[in-house]
Amino acid sequence: MSSHPAVNRQIVLRLRPDGLPTPQNFELVDGPVPQVRDGQVLLQHRYLGLAPAARLRMGEADSYAKPLALGEVIYGQAVGTVIQSLHPDFQPGDTAVSIRGGWQEYSVGSGPGLNKVNVSIAPPTVWLGALGTSGMTAYVGLLDLGRPKVGETVVVSAAGGAVGSAVGQIARLHGCRVVGIAGGAAKCEFAVSVMQFDACVDYRAPDFAQRLAQACPAGIDICFENVGGASRDAAWSLLNPRARIVVCGLISEYNGVPQPGPGWFDVLTKRLSLRGFIMSDHLDRRADFERDMGAWYGQGMVRVREDVRHGLEQTPAAFIDMLQGRNLGKTIVQL
Amino acid sequence: MSSHPAVNRQIVLRLRPDGLPTPQNFELVDGPVPQVRDGQVLLQHRYLGLAPAARLRMGEADSYAKPLALGEVIYGQAVGTVIQSLHPDFQPGDTAVSIRGGWQEYSVGSGPGLNKVNVSIAPPTVWLGALGTSGMTAYVGLLDLGRPKVGETVVVSAAGGAVGSAVGQIARLHGCRVVGIAGGAAKCEFAVSVMQFDACVDYRAPDFAQRLAQACPAGIDICFENVGGASRDAAWSLLNPRARIVVCGLISEYNGVPQPGPGWFDVLTKRLSLRGFIMSDHLDRRADFERDMGAWYGQGMVRVREDVRHGLEQTPAAFIDMLQGRNLGKTIVQL
Repeated sequence: MSSHPAVNRQIVLRLRPDGLPTPQNFELVDGPVPQVRDGQVLLQHRYLGLAPAARLRMGEADSYAKPLALGEVIYGQAVGTVIQSLHPDFQPGDTAVSIRGGWQEYSVGSGPGLNKVNVSIAPPTVWLGALGTSGMTAYVGLLDLGRPKVGETVVVSAAGGAVGSAVGQIARLHGCRVVGIAGGAAKCEFAVSVMQFDACVDYRAPDFAQRLAQACPAGIDICFENVGGASRDAAWSLLNPRARIVVCGLISEYNGVPQPGPGWFDVLTKRLSLRGFIMSDHLDRRADFERDMGAWYGQGMVRVREDVRHGLEQTPAAFIDMLQGRNLGKTIVQL
Repeated sequence: MSSHPAVNRQIVLRLRPDGLPTPQNFELVDGPVPQVRDGQVLLQHRYLGLAPAARLRMGEADSYAKPLALGEVIYGQAVGTVIQSLHPDFQPGDTAVSIRGGWQEYSVGSGPGLNKVNVSIAPPTVWLGALGTSGMTAYVGLLDLGRPKVGETVVVSAAGGAVGSAVGQIARLHGCRVVGIAGGAAKCEFAVSVMQFDACVDYRAPDFAQRLAQACPAGIDICFENVGGASRDAAWSLLNPRARIVVCGLISEYNGVPQPGPGWFDVLTKRLSLRGFIMSDHLDRRADFERDMGAWYGQGMVRVREDVRHGLEQTPAAFIDMLQGRNLGKTIVQL
């Protein structure tokens, strides 16, 4: 390494959002490029992968996601090029994903949370989505917690998003009837024609609940919940006995007041199973995921769609759009 | 068989209860003693075993429990003596439990739902409680769905009841800290001194939530829910990440309006697992249950308490008392 880069442009938390974030909650600053110590790697970010759960860290409440301090770089994933390495497993020129790279141009990382990726299997951005945490979230949530059986009906909310579209495709590969829930006709069309869902229902339609019931003539066996709110409540009434509800995300509640949950009486009398989860509790499944999902992706059985924005300064706007469902597929920012 | 008994006294559903049942919802009638056909057995009931879930069948709503028709004998278990048998596995004089014997003096049964019991292992009434469905409900709910680990804290509501006291004792045998919730000082004292709970908190105490927190200094890992309502809500706030909530019963809701459920946000961020269940979905565990529970009972490691009433005509009053928590241990009616 000869020339150490001089400036690391970063997006930091300026003010905690109250409800839906606005651009004023963020600030673009010039930070230092960190020095690499023994066992570390300097990664130049090429793409950021955005995820709704980052919203959780912008509030003050402690959850599984530790709150960001004001002035701290926003939490998020990045894929990029190793430009300096004092770690035996990484060489300059390697492509790697950093789970905690953050919304910035450079980061340092060491072993855990920094994963070299094989760009001959898939381009770098796919390692942020279908072959990254989004895909693995879908994989462990659906297969390990949902336990789909052939012929069952799986309902997935946020069907046009990175996790939802992967859930639907994996469920279909396991012989299930897959019904998406998404906002607007374009996303529903996308879920059916591109992502091969059997049906997709627009939650904004005035007769949404009725349409969902029509799309699920045999009831619902697995509900993969990414959104919460009204779409969850419509699905709730269609659950079959012994249905599994996998609670992966609650985008509709990240900006507002937490809502009361399911009727306990239904939980009892229908013998329901509800499982909240986060992917990082299931890292023991990583090798299985990479093997299976890599094969499915390689054979064209799992399709990928990305919503790519350009320039670090566009990251807050892309994030706000995503929280409002204005994305189709994985939201990526190209630096 | 020489003399076929002439009259079968029965308690039937006269009117559907609105809220807590009253004696007017029931009627004592003289019915016929059924004729035994090939493959069947005539059982003379000696004891009835009452369970809160029978309340579910008295309403009009369909749940896992099919509603009773007006005039139908109330659903319930009985243990008694075989007085006539056209079934190769049963002989006159055998003691057997009938799952669907009902609140009456005689019933006929055949293979499934009729189980011969060994009175050298335990007296007949214990086969209605700790070695019957109450005990097996505790066993599969706690072990299979709660999955206790040594050192974890288990909270059990209705700790003075047949299921609750079995859950607590099985949890303690598995190395858990066991905290009961019950109504009144006498039941709490009973749970601790007789049933060997580590602590038991009176939900009627004005500072109940604070006392429960003090009894669970390391939080709650498993909540075995028999009651619902305020006691559940107090436990909810103490749940540890990855806690399991086993929803076995909701006595506080059987007579009233179903309540909204837990916060979905907690389900997600604490990665909670909620499982509603009924014992009859887990009959594959019957042999394991009988082996383990029989051994624990035989060695005095699981203790039994019964609340015995006398006379078929007392059954409605015993049932109403039980729904109000006026029982200690399994409610039995001796005929």
